[in-house]
Amino acid sequence: MSSLEQLKKGAVEIISEAELAKKLASGKPLRVKAGFDPTAPDLHFGHLVLLRKLKAFQDLGHQVCFLIGDYTAAIGDPSGRNETRPPLTREEIERNVQTYKDQVFRVLDPGRTEVLYNSSWLDKLDGRGMIRLASRYTVARMLERNDFEKRYKAGHPLAIHEFLYPLLQGWDSVAMRADVELGGTDQKFNLLMGRHLQHEEGQEPQVVMTLPLLEGLDGVDKMSKSKGNYIGVTEAPDSMFGKMMSVSDALMWRYFELLTDRGLEEIQKMQGEVASGALHPKAVKVGLAKEIISYLHSPADADAAEAHFEKSFSQRQVEAIGDVTLSLGKNTIVAFHAVKEAGFAATGNEAKAKIKGGSIHADGQILKDPFAELKDEGAGILLQGKIDKKRVERRLFLKTY
Amino acid sequence: MSSLEQLKKGAVEIISEAELAKKLASGKPLRVKAGFDPTAPDLHFGHLVLLRKLKAFQDLGHQVCFLIGDYTAAIGDPSGRNETRPPLTREEIERNVQTYKDQVFRVLDPGRTEVLYNSSWLDKLDGRGMIRLASRYTVARMLERNDFEKRYKAGHPLAIHEFLYPLLQGWDSVAMRADVELGGTDQKFNLLMGRHLQHEEGQEPQVVMTLPLLEGLDGVDKMSKSKGNYIGVTEAPDSMFGKMMSVSDALMWRYFELLTDRGLEEIQKMQGEVASGALHPKAVKVGLAKEIISYLHSPADADAAEAHFEKSFSQRQVEAIGDVTLSLGKNTIVAFHAVKEAGFAATGNEAKAKIKGGSIHADGQILKDPFAELKDEGAGILLQGKIDKKRVERRLFLKTY
Repeated sequence: MSSLEQLKKGAVEIISEAELAKKLASGKPLRVKAGFDPTAPDLHFGHLVLLRKLKAFQDLGHQVCFLIGDYTAAIGDPSGRNETRPPLTREEIERNVQTYKDQVFRVLDPGRTEVLYNSSWLDKLDGRGMIRLASRYTVARMLERNDFEKRYKAGHPLAIHEFLYPLLQGWDSVAMRADVELGGTDQKFNLLMGRHLQHEEGQEPQVVMTLPLLEGLDGVDKMSKSKGNYIGVTEAPDSMFGKMMSVSDALMWRYFELLTDRGLEEIQKMQGEVASGALHPKAVKVGLAKEIISYLHSPADADAAEAHFEKSFSQRQVEAIGDVTLSLGKNTIVAFHAVKEAGFAATGNEAKAKIKGGSIHADGQILKDPFAELKDEGAGILLQGKIDKKRVERRLFLKTY
Repeated sequence: MSSLEQLKKGAVEIISEAELAKKLASGKPLRVKAGFDPTAPDLHFGHLVLLRKLKAFQDLGHQVCFLIGDYTAAIGDPSGRNETRPPLTREEIERNVQTYKDQVFRVLDPGRTEVLYNSSWLDKLDGRGMIRLASRYTVARMLERNDFEKRYKAGHPLAIHEFLYPLLQGWDSVAMRADVELGGTDQKFNLLMGRHLQHEEGQEPQVVMTLPLLEGLDGVDKMSKSKGNYIGVTEAPDSMFGKMMSVSDALMWRYFELLTDRGLEEIQKMQGEVASGALHPKAVKVGLAKEIISYLHSPADADAAEAHFEKSFSQRQVEAIGDVTLSLGKNTIVAFHAVKEAGFAATGNEAKAKIKGGSIHADGQILKDPFAELKDEGAGILLQGKIDKKRVERRLFLKTY
């Protein structure tokens, strides 16, 4: 693969590819920006997509500029109305940044990573500087940002300072003289703001590369901590292994594409072999899990995790009855949803049928009404039921980890 | 008249009257804010409406807070695209402020006037402070401001920093702890912002009083320097007198209401006397001119101006042919508009008829086509024509001053 081909792999959009090719051809090490918000320092495999891409740039000799967005984190919710977003103190930010470093240097090469704080230039911006920055963009174009437009049209509150944040993020690119900026597809508007402001400042605009938002273990929602469908970057090897073995075959290919160095051709070849029966999907999944654990922990850890998995689960006769505790933090859930969430059924209809068949218990009672509201009183809801064997592993992992 | 009645005279809107009555009843001297932009320090009778109202507050024992908006004046056009709005230096601002003082103290009592600069608190606002301020209002509500809404809907550029200015103006009220703020009807949105932010800051919200925008000498457009239909606050008594004698009878009553202390009842009484023929409108106009000149200059100046006027114009046989030079600065004007502008006709149709009648010369040539384009090559366009006698004065004044 050429450098460009390697970098393009998995990217959703590159604005523009021609500019990237030109920058690469210059032979100069590029400054590759990625921004992180120090309020939530727990990284999971969703972030790994970005970190892997940064690593790919490093492997080609480029410089990663890891930007800590500490400036706005020190504001919190500026209206003071949202108590769940208090401003972070300098100490809290420093602690979170250290946590970030512990995580990202499992992937990135510290020697080619510059850690920057946007407060170091934004703190110099006084009120007048903010006014000047705000003059660089129109209200109409700002309202074209997808989420702004939706909220505005729906009559949901959209405070004026929210218009300042994309401008600040764009200004970071100017201050950093970024050549490339990476981000999730949901960041496209903000990434383009960097191009806009750099162009206005007479700089060569950064290339913008958007990356997909990784699906979580459920294969449905975007991976996130709040959905519980994630694997943390610093999780123990055994836990990572177990969770990865629980994903669907379809998701396994997606993870191969986005979380490993395997080329698209190689992945297609494996897919062909699985389809023809020449390769067992479980073997492919083991290979995926070991590859990821190898670079996040070590090859020895990957071997040990595999051995532990085989010993604990695969070689043991699994029970035909599973029990799964759903933790909802004092919330309620509709019964058939709970049954599906717990992994006893693949679809809502299957879950309803199982409940009607009287084969599922919730907290010791047989469930009868698929639409009953179950409440987690704090200790979780214990669901028990008969399950077909091929799903046992996943449920047990969910319960275990 | 009660204090409230006196203050209400001429006001378009008071938000709210009950709050104003309550504040007045407290017996404490109120802090009455009015903001001025130091970029254009030439005050005319349009500003006098506001200054007179401030004086009315002073006469009742209240404190005028004369706010110089120097903070944003020192930014100019923040986008740097509009070279006609360069930032003002501190020296230029100081010079303009001195010019303001020379003018406003012809009306206001310096002993009850505090001159404030909003830079003294806004300079302390850093970028984060600006973000916090911007969080206090929503985009949707800001777009309700009439001119913003129009520009946004028409697809005209509306830059984001323009949303910050009303917030800053409102913040001034918080910093000044204003009890009342006065402004033209076009300032209503910005005045209300002060109420909003004071309320959020736990202050008793200021009462907002909007005042009408005074019509200029033509009786049509708002008085403004650019329209040339103004009387400057520091103009010489003779010039003021002549210009005031040139206004229509209808406008004379409007000026009585907005620029003098006469009560509405007294004005109505005079109107009745003019209608019945008991009072000559010229005598009323002389009274208006002398009253205004008395307080802007002195009663002696008013007497002298009257004498000068009578000597120069009224007691002299005016010619039946007038000539008026229109200065358009190398621009063109349609013939019948020119004839109307020069005062040879009261309406466009009358002007067209006069041209068709062959009674008007432009630069020495008889005008034939009402729609001909006349060009001012730099020396002005000389219009000459027969005029009915009662209009002579006005034309001559326009020419003279």
